[in-house]
Amino acid sequence: MKAAVFVEPGRIVLDEKPIPEVGPLDALLRVTTTTICGTDIHILKGEYPVAKGLTIGHEPVGVIEKLGAAVQGYREGQRVIAGAITPSGHSAACLCGYHSQDGGFNKSGFKAMGGWRFGNTIDGCQAEYVLVPDAMANLCPVPDELTDEQVLMCPDIMSTGFSGAESGRIRIGDVVAVFAQGPIGLCATAGAKLSGATTVIAVDGIAGRLEMARKCGADIVLNYKEVDPVEEIVRLTDGRGVDAAIEALGTQGTFESCLRVLRPGGTLSSLGVYSGDLRIPLGAFAAGLGDHKIVTTLCPGGKERMRRLISVIQSGRLDLRPMVTHRYRLDDIEAAYELFANQRDGVLKVAITP
Amino acid sequence: MKAAVFVEPGRIVLDEKPIPEVGPLDALLRVTTTTICGTDIHILKGEYPVAKGLTIGHEPVGVIEKLGAAVQGYREGQRVIAGAITPSGHSAACLCGYHSQDGGFNKSGFKAMGGWRFGNTIDGCQAEYVLVPDAMANLCPVPDELTDEQVLMCPDIMSTGFSGAESGRIRIGDVVAVFAQGPIGLCATAGAKLSGATTVIAVDGIAGRLEMARKCGADIVLNYKEVDPVEEIVRLTDGRGVDAAIEALGTQGTFESCLRVLRPGGTLSSLGVYSGDLRIPLGAFAAGLGDHKIVTTLCPGGKERMRRLISVIQSGRLDLRPMVTHRYRLDDIEAAYELFANQRDGVLKVAITP
Amino acid sequence: MKAAVFVEPGRIVLDEKPIPEVGPLDALLRVTTTTICGTDIHILKGEYPVAKGLTIGHEPVGVIEKLGAAVQGYREGQRVIAGAITPSGHSAACLCGYHSQDGGFNKSGFKAMGGWRFGNTIDGCQAEYVLVPDAMANLCPVPDELTDEQVLMCPDIMSTGFSGAESGRIRIGDVVAVFAQGPIGLCATAGAKLSGATTVIAVDGIAGRLEMARKCGADIVLNYKEVDPVEEIVRLTDGRGVDAAIEALGTQGTFESCLRVLRPGGTLSSLGVYSGDLRIPLGAFAAGLGDHKIVTTLCPGGKERMRRLISVIQSGRLDLRPMVTHRYRLDDIEAAYELFANQRDGVLKVAITP
Amino acid sequence: MKAAVFVEPGRIVLDEKPIPEVGPLDALLRVTTTTICGTDIHILKGEYPVAKGLTIGHEPVGVIEKLGAAVQGYREGQRVIAGAITPSGHSAACLCGYHSQDGGFNKSGFKAMGGWRFGNTIDGCQAEYVLVPDAMANLCPVPDELTDEQVLMCPDIMSTGFSGAESGRIRIGDVVAVFAQGPIGLCATAGAKLSGATTVIAVDGIAGRLEMARKCGADIVLNYKEVDPVEEIVRLTDGRGVDAAIEALGTQGTFESCLRVLRPGGTLSSLGVYSGDLRIPLGAFAAGLGDHKIVTTLCPGGKERMRRLISVIQSGRLDLRPMVTHRYRLDDIEAAYELFANQRDGVLKVAITP
Repeated sequence: MKAAVFVEPGRIVLDEKPIPEVGPLDALLRVTTTTICGTDIHILKGEYPVAKGLTIGHEPVGVIEKLGAAVQGYREGQRVIAGAITPSGHSAACLCGYHSQDGGFNKSGFKAMGGWRFGNTIDGCQAEYVLVPDAMANLCPVPDELTDEQVLMCPDIMSTGFSGAESGRIRIGDVVAVFAQGPIGLCATAGAKLSGATTVIAVDGIAGRLEMARKCGADIVLNYKEVDPVEEIVRLTDGRGVDAAIEALGTQGTFESCLRVLRPGGTLSSLGVYSGDLRIPLGAFAAGLGDHKIVTTLCPGGKERMRRLISVIQSGRLDLRPMVTHRYRLDDIEAAYELFANQRDGVLKVAITP
Repeated sequence: MKAAVFVEPGRIVLDEKPIPEVGPLDALLRVTTTTICGTDIHILKGEYPVAKGLTIGHEPVGVIEKLGAAVQGYREGQRVIAGAITPSGHSAACLCGYHSQDGGFNKSGFKAMGGWRFGNTIDGCQAEYVLVPDAMANLCPVPDELTDEQVLMCPDIMSTGFSGAESGRIRIGDVVAVFAQGPIGLCATAGAKLSGATTVIAVDGIAGRLEMARKCGADIVLNYKEVDPVEEIVRLTDGRGVDAAIEALGTQGTFESCLRVLRPGGTLSSLGVYSGDLRIPLGAFAAGLGDHKIVTTLCPGGKERMRRLISVIQSGRLDLRPMVTHRYRLDDIEAAYELFANQRDGVLKVAITP
Repeated sequence: MKAAVFVEPGRIVLDEKPIPEVGPLDALLRVTTTTICGTDIHILKGEYPVAKGLTIGHEPVGVIEKLGAAVQGYREGQRVIAGAITPSGHSAACLCGYHSQDGGFNKSGFKAMGGWRFGNTIDGCQAEYVLVPDAMANLCPVPDELTDEQVLMCPDIMSTGFSGAESGRIRIGDVVAVFAQGPIGLCATAGAKLSGATTVIAVDGIAGRLEMARKCGADIVLNYKEVDPVEEIVRLTDGRGVDAAIEALGTQGTFESCLRVLRPGGTLSSLGVYSGDLRIPLGAFAAGLGDHKIVTTLCPGGKERMRRLISVIQSGRLDLRPMVTHRYRLDDIEAAYELFANQRDGVLKVAITP
Repeated sequence: MKAAVFVEPGRIVLDEKPIPEVGPLDALLRVTTTTICGTDIHILKGEYPVAKGLTIGHEPVGVIEKLGAAVQGYREGQRVIAGAITPSGHSAACLCGYHSQDGGFNKSGFKAMGGWRFGNTIDGCQAEYVLVPDAMANLCPVPDELTDEQVLMCPDIMSTGFSGAESGRIRIGDVVAVFAQGPIGLCATAGAKLSGATTVIAVDGIAGRLEMARKCGADIVLNYKEVDPVEEIVRLTDGRGVDAAIEALGTQGTFESCLRVLRPGGTLSSLGVYSGDLRIPLGAFAAGLGDHKIVTTLCPGGKERMRRLISVIQSGRLDLRPMVTHRYRLDDIEAAYELFANQRDGVLKVAITP
C-alpha cells in the first residue's frame, strides 16, 4: 500500500509499505479521507522527533476492512472515524479519566501524551490502510447522511478546539477571548459560543481567518495588526477582563496576552504546542495571588468523544466544511505538504483521498 | 492607641494613632493577639508597596468593642476573629464565588487581590484596635474553650495552607508533594492529609521544619540539602509522579520542581507570592500537552471560612500551637520584626499581644 | 402608593400603602414594569402561606428613587433590575456560595429558601415602589438600549430556567429532555441549547408552547397528548436515555418521567415547586445503583447573576419578548391575576406597568 | 473445581464445576480469599434475580493462574485483587468516566449496573477459580507486605463506602451524618473522616457497630434506639443541619432521615440498595427549592481504584482487619451463609478461603 513516510527532517515522501497484520484488539481501516495537521509540519521540520520510516497522520475517516479476533460490536464494511488520540481504555490514566495520557514519566522530564499513537509511536493514516489499536475503545460509526468531509475535523481539530472551551469551564454569560484563528482556534471560538459565552472575542492577524471566525460564532474580531488586542479587550470589558482566555497557537506572545486579559479568578485554557520555555510575567500573574488557573488539554479521543462531536455536526450547530480549502489525492500528498507547510493560498485544511 | 506603622522601606515602627471611627458596616475590635506574616516582611523590605503611615497586620484575634449602626447578629464584648482577606460579600467577585478578589483590573496589569484590605489598603491589626470592614461578612465568634493562640493561624496561615490542598482537588489515595515547610507549607501538608492524600511528601532544607512537617501529617520528608527532591519523588512514585504538587514559597526553584514531579493530568497548586517573572520549562510542561493544571489561590476569608477552620481545631484534627515559637508584647513588636525578618532562632510564628 | 396585597386565600387586591422608609442598606425603586409569577398564584390560592397584608411580586424593573445611607456604587435615577432572590451577600450561605439559601432550619422541617424575600417575607414589587434590601448585592443597571420588557424575565423566569440547565451540568453533545414548556421550561430549553446540548427534546401538551419551544432552541418537540414521551425518548435515543432531564412543572408525573428517560449516570435537574410528597419508582431509580443524580435549584439571584442574564439578551442569543403575551396597568392587576390564574387566552407572561 | 452456586431462592450450595476456559482478554485467578456480601443475601433470598447455576461472589483476592492471549502487563503467579465491578474500559460509559455503568437501558426501566458482572451476569468468585474479564482494566497487584485479609474489603465494601463520602463532595470542615454502620456504613464513616469532615456523626442501633464506628473515625455516635437521630443532629448542629448525609442501608427510614438532617444546599449521598419505591417528604425536600442534591453511587471498580484503596491500607490510614469477625473454609460456605444471612454472633464480614 501507499503511505506518507517520515524520512528525515525536511522530507516526508509517499512510499510503498506492506498492509499491516491485524492483532486481536486491532481493526484495519481502508482510509477514505484524511488530512494534514500542524503537528505533522512540526514532524516534517524535525521539531518533533519521530522514528524514521514512520507513516504520518492521525485524522482518519475510513471503512473497516478487517477486525481483530477479540473485537466485538462492529462489522467489516462499516464506515467509521477514530480520534487522533487512541486511548486503550484499560490504562491507569484511562481508568482515572484522563484518557489522553496513557504514558509514563521519566527522569529527564515527562513522557506525557501517551495516548497519541497514530503517526507518533505507531504508523498513522496518511496511507491506504491504517491499523487502529484498541479498536473497541476507538472506532466510531459515521451516519450515512454525513460525508467524509463533514466529519474530517472530528478526530483532532474539533476535539482539540472544543476542549479549549470545555477546560476553560465556560458558562452562560461568560466573556471569552480566543487568541489565534487557525483551524484549532476557529473550533475553540465555535466551542466557546456553543458553551454559552455571550461575548466571544477572536484575535488573529489574517482578515480571512477573522471572517471565518465570525461564521464560527465570534461576536467581536480583532486584527492584532490593527489594534493592540490586550488594550482593546480591557477597553471592551470596561476593565473587567475576560472570564476565560484560550491560547490556540503555542507562542509566548499569545500565552502572555491571554494572561494579561484575564480577570482575577479567570482561566487561561492553553491548546498550543509550545516550542520553548514559557515566561509568566509577574504583573499579569498578580504575583501568584490572582486566583488564576492555567489549564492545558491534549485532544480528547475515544469513540464516545467522536460520537458527541458527530452529534454536533448532525444537529446543524456547526458546519466545518468551509474549513476544507484544498483537496489532494494521496498520490499528490507531497504537494499538499508543500502548500500546507508554507501556508500558501489561504489554506486552512486540505482533504487527502487515497 | 499604639500601632505598628510602615514608615519607609526598612522601617516599621510602633507609633501612636487615634482609635478609628466606626462606620455603619464596620466593627471595632480590641485586638488581643495577632502575629507577623511573611507578607509583612515583603512590606518591610519595600518589595510590596503600601502607603506610608499604614498600620500593618492582617491576622486579628480580638473582642468586639463597638458595632456599626447597620451591623446585626453580633454583640459587643464578643470574642472573634476575622480573616486576613475581608470580602465585602456584595461585590461582583463575591457574588461569583471568588470572594478574595473584590478588586478590578488596569491596563498596566491586574489589580487583583482586592479582598486583601487589612494592612494593605486599610489599617491593619498590629495595633490596640482595628476596624473590621463589612463586619457581618467577616466576624467569626471564637468558642470559649479555645485560646487565642489556638485560633491565631486561622485568619491567614491555615486558610492559605489548606487552600493549597483544596485547590489541588486532592482525593483519597492521592500522592502529594509540598515544596517548602514554612508556616504555610506546614498547613498545606496538614491540609493534604486531611483531604485524603495517602502519601504526603514534604520538602524543605531545615531539619526542624521537616520534623514539624511529620507532626502535621507528612508521610515522607525530604531535605533538599541531602537529596535531589525531584529525583527522589520520581523514584518514590516508581516514575509515576505526584497527583498534586503544592508550591508554598514563591520561588522559581520550588515552582519548577513542582512541575517536574507532576504526573500527566496533575495539578500544581501554587500558594507562594512570587517576586519576579516565572519560567515554565518546556519539558516539564510537556510542551503544553500534558493536561497539566496550574492553579493559584489567595487566602480564602469570610466568617464562614473562619468557622470551618475553627471546627478543624475544635475537632482535634490539628493543633497548630507548636507553630507559635515566640511571644512578644505589642510594645516590643520592632524586636519581633527583627527576629522574624531574619528568621533567627528557629522562629516559625510569633504571637503579639497588645 | 398602590400595591397588590394578599388579603386571604383567593384574594389579592390593589390597596393603598405608605411608601416605605429607606434603611441604611436599602434602595427604594420606583417600579416601571413587573409581572405575575406562578408562585404568586400558589400564594393567591393559599397553597403557599404568606402574611396577610403583604405586597406580592418578585420581578422588578425600575428606577432608583432613593439610596440608603450606606449604599455606594449607584446613583438615584439609575434604571435597574433586582433578582427575585435577594441574597444578603454576608450570610453564611452566601459565603459558602449557595446564595439563594440565607435561611435556617427548624425541627419540623427546613426553613430553606431564605434568600427569597420579595413578596414572601418582605413587601414585593407589584406596587408603585419597592424597597430592595442589601442593595449593593442586588441592584443591576439596565443598559439604555434594552426595554423593560426585554429584561423582565431576568429576575426569575430566565434565571430559574437557565439554572435547570446549569445544575444539570450540560456539556457539548448532550441529549437533554425538558418536561413542561411554561415560561420556566421554555427558558430551561433555551438554557440547555445555550449550554451546548445538541439534542434538546421539549415536552408539553399545548401546541402553542411547543411552537415557542422550537423558537427557544428545542430540536424535537413532543406533545404528551399525542405520544408517550418516555417511550418516544427511549426510541429517539436508541435506548440510550438522556444525559440530563429537566423537570419544570412540579408534579409527580413529570418528575417520574424525567427519571425514566435518564441514562445511568445522568442528572435529573428539578426546578418545579412540588405540592406533595414525591415518589421515586424503584426501577427507574435502578434501586439506587444507577449513579443517578437528582439536583434541585432555587432561582439564583444577586446583581452579578442579573448582569450575566442581561448580557445574554444583549448578545442577541435569546429574545424573550414573545413571552409577554398580555399587558396590564397596575390599576388593573386584579384582572391580570384572573387571566393568569386561569391560564386563559394562551397567556405566558403578563407585563404590569404602574 | 468447587463453587458456591445459586440453585433457587433460599438455596446457594457448594457444587462441582469445570475450571473456566480463558479467553483472549481474560485472566484466570486461583482464589485465595473471598467473602460474602449483603447483596449475595439478596440473591439468596430471591430478592435480586440471577440465573440458576451461577457462581456467586464478587470480592476476590487471588493469584494469577493463566493469562489470556491478548493480556499484557501481568505475569502468572502474581498476587492480585479485582474490584466487584469490572469495567471493560472500552464501553461508552467507561469513555465518559462512569465506569460502573457499562450496560444499556430498556423500555421497562433501565438496565443500569452494567459494570457489575461477577456473581451477577458471569460466574463469581466464591469458588476455587474465577475468570476475570477485561483483565488489563481490572487486575491490581497486591504488595507482598499486605495479607489477604488486609485487602479483602477493597473490591467492594471499602470502594462503595468511600464513594459515599466522595460523591457527597465532602470538604474540610464539613459536618457529615452516616446512617447505618454495617460494613459499608463503617467505610463511609472512615471515608468521611479521610475526606476532611470535622464532625462525623454515625447512626446505628447496635452498640458493637457504634463502637467500631468510633474506631473508623466517628466523632459522635447515636443509637437510634436511645435517641431520635434527626432531632439529635438538628440539636448538635444548632439547627444548621449537616453538609452531607450518607445513606448506607437502603430503607425508606434511613433515606428520609438523611433528607431531614440536610442543610439547604446539602447533599444526600445514597449507597443503599433499595427494595421498593422511595418517598421524598415534601417538607424535608423544601418543596424542591432547597438546592438539595440526591446522589447515588455504584461501587467504583477497575485496577486504578483498587490501587488507590490499597494505598490507603498501606499508608496506615485505615485498618479494616477488625471487620473480619468470622473465618470459614470454602467447604463450609453454606454455614457461613447461614450465619451471615441471619446476622448472628455479631458478624460483620466473614473470610472464606478455598
